[in-house]
Amino acid sequence: MNNSSWTILQMHEHQLLQSIYDSSTTLQGVSIGPGDDMGEVVIGNEKVLFAVDQLVVGRHVTPNTKPSHIGRKAVARCFSDIAAMCATPVGCLMTACVPGDATNEWCQEIFEGAKLVAQEWGGPLFGGDIAQSEGPAVFSISAIATPPENGAVLRSGAQEHDYLCVTGELGNANASHHLAFTPRIHEAQELLATLGSDLHSMIDISDGLGRDASHLANKGIKIIIDTTLLPLRAGATVESALSDGEDYELLFTSSTVPPTHLATVIGKVQIGNNTVVTQSGVDISNCGWNHA
Amino acid sequence: MNNSSWTILQMHEHQLLQSIYDSSTTLQGVSIGPGDDMGEVVIGNEKVLFAVDQLVVGRHVTPNTKPSHIGRKAVARCFSDIAAMCATPVGCLMTACVPGDATNEWCQEIFEGAKLVAQEWGGPLFGGDIAQSEGPAVFSISAIATPPENGAVLRSGAQEHDYLCVTGELGNANASHHLAFTPRIHEAQELLATLGSDLHSMIDISDGLGRDASHLANKGIKIIIDTTLLPLRAGATVESALSDGEDYELLFTSSTVPPTHLATVIGKVQIGNNTVVTQSGVDISNCGWNHA
Repeated sequence: MNNSSWTILQMHEHQLLQSIYDSSTTLQGVSIGPGDDMGEVVIGNEKVLFAVDQLVVGRHVTPNTKPSHIGRKAVARCFSDIAAMCATPVGCLMTACVPGDATNEWCQEIFEGAKLVAQEWGGPLFGGDIAQSEGPAVFSISAIATPPENGAVLRSGAQEHDYLCVTGELGNANASHHLAFTPRIHEAQELLATLGSDLHSMIDISDGLGRDASHLANKGIKIIIDTTLLPLRAGATVESALSDGEDYELLFTSSTVPPTHLATVIGKVQIGNNTVVTQSGVDISNCGWNHA
Repeated sequence: MNNSSWTILQMHEHQLLQSIYDSSTTLQGVSIGPGDDMGEVVIGNEKVLFAVDQLVVGRHVTPNTKPSHIGRKAVARCFSDIAAMCATPVGCLMTACVPGDATNEWCQEIFEGAKLVAQEWGGPLFGGDIAQSEGPAVFSISAIATPPENGAVLRSGAQEHDYLCVTGELGNANASHHLAFTPRIHEAQELLATLGSDLHSMIDISDGLGRDASHLANKGIKIIIDTTLLPLRAGATVESALSDGEDYELLFTSSTVPPTHLATVIGKVQIGNNTVVTQSGVDISNCGWNHA
């Protein structure tokens, strides 16, 4: 990864961001730095979580996607990061960078779609920025949120003997789920209320189960996924459940088994070498979509 | 403006955003809504300001602009909004949406340029998102900040008999200033410390003096600018000072005259019809660049 002429396609977002932030010394006031679903800063006596996510027309939605669904998905993607910290939304801002032939009507329906769900999910849209470019339309949502009383649930924190668990169902998300999902904000809070300090680590599945599980498998941890236990969405195969992404379900580790109405146990945490493998030993750490 | 087939080019960002938010009822927890330089939410006992700004390659910078300067300008544009509220930066996030042929080196230099000034200006970059599109590169900076003790200085608030004042110099910003300016965060705080509650309203000049002054001229207020008083940047004409934009100076109204080392008086506030005119009565409310 030292060849500077490599294109962005060849370097994953995670690696590029990591290479940028590796040189960071500790940042004043920053209590959760780069590398988790949200960052966190301390303001007075309050902890404030902060995340941003982009949606590119032609990549995350098609030009023919219903505009209100584009707005909805832009918010949902970002608020899924809030869920993954067991946090509570406070508010959000939206940007639009649109081509010159975009109509006001189209833009307005996208903003309206975003505004509706942002409000419904407790983090109202209260500002934004509009710019113009020659390229396909790009939208972003920046959100702020507050952590639960005992602190946000991080990606790091998985412990030996933890159960690996997932909410909902996996795979075949591209059929319709990716436009229709609701961020698991309430489920995350219910899990935290139920599991308490036994809930050790959490992420949302955006890039694919294998790849996202690999973010939980750090600091000498190995995750073993039993592919026979995967809760498959209608039309999904095991392969799509492992690698398609866009599930926006919560993947977490806990030392106690969660209630079955909230999540399914799909694997275990062992001491190991920062990998994710199936029950038959196949390494699936890179199984997923480079979602950038 | 009701013709929905009008393109975004024909509707100013301000108007589109306004039309989107006009339908908003009051938003829970939102203490400063859409329409100012930043929005504000209340979290516990703290007020948190929140803004986002985009930078489009080919529009706000050229593809040949030094990458570190692109990163610097992306942060500077957003932090100028922080200055315009007399606020203090806390931290920021950056997004990049780049074409497939963008090299890691180019992206990394942009992020490094952004990181350097964000840290220097007190609002460290602590996360972000990278995506890919076919279009020109688009960057955004989302920032959070804290208001001064007695609350952020808003765009609204100009009072009859106020002096209209500006920091620094105006015009010909495109020559080099637009890449080199430092957001007037310290100057804003010094102005507030000096003027106190006599400092009634403030905005930063991004779109052009006429257009930005018009955001201060609301609720039955009229602003008269004496063009002979404009502090011109080297190479600037009165016309460019009135309309070029990208000055990122602070434009404010105050019932007392500010210290000359901080700002220049360029006009007066009267009771009127929400317009900005020159000393000879020419309406310059629309003098500026639709900066979207």
